[in-house]
Amino acid sequence: MRDKILGFLRKRQDYISGDYISHRLGISRQALWKHVQDLRDSGYEIVAVPHLGYKLTAVPDRLFISEVSNRLNTRFVGRNIYYFDSVISTMDIALQLGLKNCPEGTVIIAETQTKGRGRIGRQWFSPRYKGIYFSCILRPKILPYATPVLTLLTAVSICEAIKNMLSLDVQIKWPNDILLHNKKLGGILTELNAEMDEVRFIVIGVGLNVNNDKRSLVEGATSLKEHIQENINRVELLQEIMQRLEGNYILFQEKGSHAIIEKWRHYNITLGRRVRVLHNKEYIEGEASDIDSDGSLLLRKDSGLVHKITSGDITHCR
Amino acid sequence: MRDKILGFLRKRQDYISGDYISHRLGISRQALWKHVQDLRDSGYEIVAVPHLGYKLTAVPDRLFISEVSNRLNTRFVGRNIYYFDSVISTMDIALQLGLKNCPEGTVIIAETQTKGRGRIGRQWFSPRYKGIYFSCILRPKILPYATPVLTLLTAVSICEAIKNMLSLDVQIKWPNDILLHNKKLGGILTELNAEMDEVRFIVIGVGLNVNNDKRSLVEGATSLKEHIQENINRVELLQEIMQRLEGNYILFQEKGSHAIIEKWRHYNITLGRRVRVLHNKEYIEGEASDIDSDGSLLLRKDSGLVHKITSGDITHCR
Repeated sequence: MRDKILGFLRKRQDYISGDYISHRLGISRQALWKHVQDLRDSGYEIVAVPHLGYKLTAVPDRLFISEVSNRLNTRFVGRNIYYFDSVISTMDIALQLGLKNCPEGTVIIAETQTKGRGRIGRQWFSPRYKGIYFSCILRPKILPYATPVLTLLTAVSICEAIKNMLSLDVQIKWPNDILLHNKKLGGILTELNAEMDEVRFIVIGVGLNVNNDKRSLVEGATSLKEHIQENINRVELLQEIMQRLEGNYILFQEKGSHAIIEKWRHYNITLGRRVRVLHNKEYIEGEASDIDSDGSLLLRKDSGLVHKITSGDITHCR
Repeated sequence: MRDKILGFLRKRQDYISGDYISHRLGISRQALWKHVQDLRDSGYEIVAVPHLGYKLTAVPDRLFISEVSNRLNTRFVGRNIYYFDSVISTMDIALQLGLKNCPEGTVIIAETQTKGRGRIGRQWFSPRYKGIYFSCILRPKILPYATPVLTLLTAVSICEAIKNMLSLDVQIKWPNDILLHNKKLGGILTELNAEMDEVRFIVIGVGLNVNNDKRSLVEGATSLKEHIQENINRVELLQEIMQRLEGNYILFQEKGSHAIIEKWRHYNITLGRRVRVLHNKEYIEGEASDIDSDGSLLLRKDSGLVHKITSGDITHCR
């Protein structure tokens, strides 16, 4: 009902009669008033003028389902959303939902995470209302070993969304760091639930620093606001990311990993550089010469020997 | 308390005074009597004779925790057991427990599964009290792509247990079919929860036909009883499997997949044979020439070209 009332207010963009809304929705004026109060409590600014009716003058800076779903241009990504003001980790909820056969494209959004997860047991700092923290469940028909390309796909989608909306040149450091001027802007965590023969589902987790001020950023990190100098509409950015994610996911399914890797090359700052990586408990150093079709990094040592690196932390040497 | 009373009865193997037990356990004679009744309801045969006391004369044919834990010779596999008379699938419960950080080696046992899972969405027929159906949670420090060897490891453990206890020569058809005289005796399902960088946990599921008569077997299947002609002690067999599983798992961690694959070769009936397999949506045929260190099958076509098969159903051609 809340969403339907919002729908009327949004469509009109001017005063709309309370009689009209309550008549159309089959509720009493009193019930309508109660819902409007409710919306105001959630941060929607709604002006009420006798004889004129209601007018929506501002929406809150929240990733509410009603906001994120509004004019969302996707087929399945974000068509089923769970929203939390605070949560331990959107990944944990996504894993539970995945096991319960939730539809593909289900998205879990949180305004803050008390224990947001990064790679390899690291934590992701998720200050409330500042960033975009979400997990998305996908069910690709691929073998478990082919899943790392989905991390690349997500990184590409984030870069494209930011480039398109804010004209900022974001970079990808293999495999999943999103950088802006060499500082960390975002990260991607991919978790997998699979049989040996097939993937049951994958959860892609995204953490992105958006409207963080300096004091809500960890060292070495940056936010979009630091570069744009004003608050960014998180709803629009999240919608753009979800749309790109779906588009690239469909591209991947139709054309294979090759099409994704081509896009990834465009944003990456790792290939061609001298890097160092912890591999089988020892550091190896060499040139990041190429990326394999499964998303692995090919590292060419000075001896000419090429190592295939499936995961790990790389350091750009210079 | 139940387990403690059973402990006294088992240790004595003769009549043991009720006064003695209740004194040692600090409970009343009446309370002891109630527990004994309870045990009888569960199928334990306990004789009570005035002035002599209680005597355990028979244990039920159930995979109760008290039975499976009794004299179990493992360090972690089966040290934490969940037992169900009936369950949808032990795999589902294991996945939930795995996400909740249950200890490594946690085992979920069921007497029957209403929807026991086989590979690729198939069903595993689990008639009540006839077979052994369990799932075990492991947390190996390996990368996701290295996990298929755990399926081989489990297959080896089952073969060793049956060979040791019943002197039956069981065979493995790649990757995970346990055969006896070319009929299906058991299956293994391996499920994985992982980040791209590390495995969070693996669930190994085992379904084994033990005391099935012909009418509780699907076509093409066999049971141990069909060959031994008498009922097999399921508790002992399960304990033996868990012990072998732990031993091989430790071997794998210490010596790597090579040690497991060597054992696997000994039981396998696939290598050296002409096989056919559905690979990337087309059938390919050739000789099953070897097994790779990650557990993949190497198939050599007549052209000499070698394909690496990571999963799928193979047909032995002759």
